[in-house]
Amino acid sequence: MTSTVESIAAPGVPGLDEAGRALLFTQARTANAFADTPVGDEQLAAIWELTRWAPTSANLQPLRVTFVRTAQGRERLLPLMNEGNRAKTASAPATAILAVDSRFHQYAPTLLPIRPQLKDALDADESLRATMTSFNGPLQAGYFILAIRAQGLVAGPMAGFDAAGIDAEFYPDGRWKSVLVVNIGHPGENPWFERLPRLDPADVIRWA
Amino acid sequence: MTSTVESIAAPGVPGLDEAGRALLFTQARTANAFADTPVGDEQLAAIWELTRWAPTSANLQPLRVTFVRTAQGRERLLPLMNEGNRAKTASAPATAILAVDSRFHQYAPTLLPIRPQLKDALDADESLRATMTSFNGPLQAGYFILAIRAQGLVAGPMAGFDAAGIDAEFYPDGRWKSVLVVNIGHPGENPWFERLPRLDPADVIRWA
Repeated sequence: MTSTVESIAAPGVPGLDEAGRALLFTQARTANAFADTPVGDEQLAAIWELTRWAPTSANLQPLRVTFVRTAQGRERLLPLMNEGNRAKTASAPATAILAVDSRFHQYAPTLLPIRPQLKDALDADESLRATMTSFNGPLQAGYFILAIRAQGLVAGPMAGFDAAGIDAEFYPDGRWKSVLVVNIGHPGENPWFERLPRLDPADVIRWA
Repeated sequence: MTSTVESIAAPGVPGLDEAGRALLFTQARTANAFADTPVGDEQLAAIWELTRWAPTSANLQPLRVTFVRTAQGRERLLPLMNEGNRAKTASAPATAILAVDSRFHQYAPTLLPIRPQLKDALDADESLRATMTSFNGPLQAGYFILAIRAQGLVAGPMAGFDAAGIDAEFYPDGRWKSVLVVNIGHPGENPWFERLPRLDPADVIRWA
């Protein structure tokens, strides 16, 4: 493993090729309409297979995913989306509800065996758990969106939904808490608006 | 633009090639020691040039970056890192302090011109602004970490630092708030531990 990574990341190697940069970053767009082309469960599982390797604090991986891709599942989800997000969600062959597991630390002894005391420390500190989920949930959501694109699919992330309603409908035991809903599929007709501007790097970057 | 993306994301196209998946996700590792190989400012700027295209809520892009790569900059930063993070940060040719701009909505009229009322709405609602930065800051941090890897560099993200101290030292006007510190460079000697396990997908994924 070590030698493979070293050879990939060695000085002089330019990193991701132009097609990969275009696919994940520079040419990728958020889709608002989807084609009928189906997306199989194995393609959805493959998105997670990429996502899960990217790093999280103390390797604790709090993000959880519900893939909604049946008519019944979509019927449960649609009324809980904001009105402006319903038509596009109805047109997507699959939609991921991203959530955080409020008891993610249950897995700490397996995920970080070098710190066996971590599970009890987190068990006793709900505020620290909340800090960790509120940071690492969105962090992993960022990985997840790029992993959708890495599968040759388009992503349509949406913050406009009834989170309490989704949690009550999909996670009635109260343990998982929804944080983002993401449509997944292939672009349909007129799938995106004109691209919106990005900040001038001079307003974002400082040097020290 | 549209036709380019459609051809990239068309059905049947498998997405990112195996080398790209390895570079960004499956073979990439968090580095704990860095080689002397320098990282130029243009390489650091190129990380942001990829990061900035990935999506954010209402296109508001609250993440900010300070690239620390001079001896003076490192001297200011090192005492503010947790002790266990100091040696590796000292060995990295560059370190990014990722922060959120608490007044990110200043740019709303330019970034989302179709909703001209958004800036005033956010100006009046500090709690909504905090919700947006706490979600989109880590989301963009996820993009940033993968963009480092896309440049053929390795990332060493660290949550262990004195955030109040960094904010006082680097952002004394109180507007930017640090959220993550990330070492950037090429792997040094024994750069990583044995890889830690990932959750079983059966514990992460549900189907509906």
